[in-house]
Amino acid sequence: MKRIAKRDFPVSQVRRFLEPGPIVLVSSAHGGRTNIMTMGWHMIMEFEPSLIGCYIWTENFSFELIRRSRECVFNVPTVDIAATVVRIGNTSGRDIDKFATFGLTRAKAAMVGAPLIAECFANFECRLADARMVKRYSLFVLEVVKAHVATAPKYPRTLHYRGDGEFMISGENTRRYRRFFRPEML
Amino acid sequence: MKRIAKRDFPVSQVRRFLEPGPIVLVSSAHGGRTNIMTMGWHMIMEFEPSLIGCYIWTENFSFELIRRSRECVFNVPTVDIAATVVRIGNTSGRDIDKFATFGLTRAKAAMVGAPLIAECFANFECRLADARMVKRYSLFVLEVVKAHVATAPKYPRTLHYRGDGEFMISGENTRRYRRFFRPEML
Repeated sequence: MKRIAKRDFPVSQVRRFLEPGPIVLVSSAHGGRTNIMTMGWHMIMEFEPSLIGCYIWTENFSFELIRRSRECVFNVPTVDIAATVVRIGNTSGRDIDKFATFGLTRAKAAMVGAPLIAECFANFECRLADARMVKRYSLFVLEVVKAHVATAPKYPRTLHYRGDGEFMISGENTRRYRRFFRPEML
Repeated sequence: MKRIAKRDFPVSQVRRFLEPGPIVLVSSAHGGRTNIMTMGWHMIMEFEPSLIGCYIWTENFSFELIRRSRECVFNVPTVDIAATVVRIGNTSGRDIDKFATFGLTRAKAAMVGAPLIAECFANFECRLADARMVKRYSLFVLEVVKAHVATAPKYPRTLHYRGDGEFMISGENTRRYRRFFRPEML
């Protein structure tokens, strides 16, 4: 798998990659352990600060790593590494080191302790902004504090999960409906 | 625009259509007024009960209709009506009746007062399950109480928003990665 060159990207604009709804790989680290989990249940909640809401099941090994370290990284994988994405989702960090097992490269983050996954298209460094909804809904509110996005292409082919082993792969990107927009409502 | 024939669908399975992250049209009704808004900020939060989280800005006309009626409908539009989806997002229900203006058909819901949009691929009737996060985050937790999905095709071509007038249109659906799944972790 290829490591992807990236540039800094404005944190207020991560919606360009997350709002279409791709599966993300969430990397985390705490107390000398690291982990990666696949996640499809997330949403944009605000531009500035750049907030994301996401669901992390209490039984996931990542749950405690993220709750305790109060940090993680949202990594956006492309269809090229789909088999690895599925394998990450079907194993537990309690049993294996997922970076080593799946041949993924840890890159150093700028603002958080959790590692970036070098083979992903984008890496969004996050800090836990609000844990008050974790107990009732397993809902973590994260703030994106630093964003890295591939220099090319403009948009990747991403994986979107439907459940039961089925994926939708992102298709065409278009600005053809832009003429129907009123500029002040963009 | 064509009205789409639908069948009942299990509410615990709405993730098949929502988890990939499409734009939805949210219809609502209260005190003799109805409205439709476009929405990209939503996520699955639970299978049973079937919970969805979504962000509705306080300035949207729909905010008060949904907060007061405690009901709404998530309608999934397809690329065929993309121009209408954009126009709905760029007008306010304070000024116009969006059903009349855009030639959309109100169909009667089974469990809620808000109308279904007959021209959409799927209609998910929702009740407000938790309003405690509305004040701080404009976050509504909804329970899907009844689901209607088109009889064909299996999956539609949906619109996924990137901001600034750009959309991603859903591509191929595949089960080819299913062989990497461990059955117990589906």
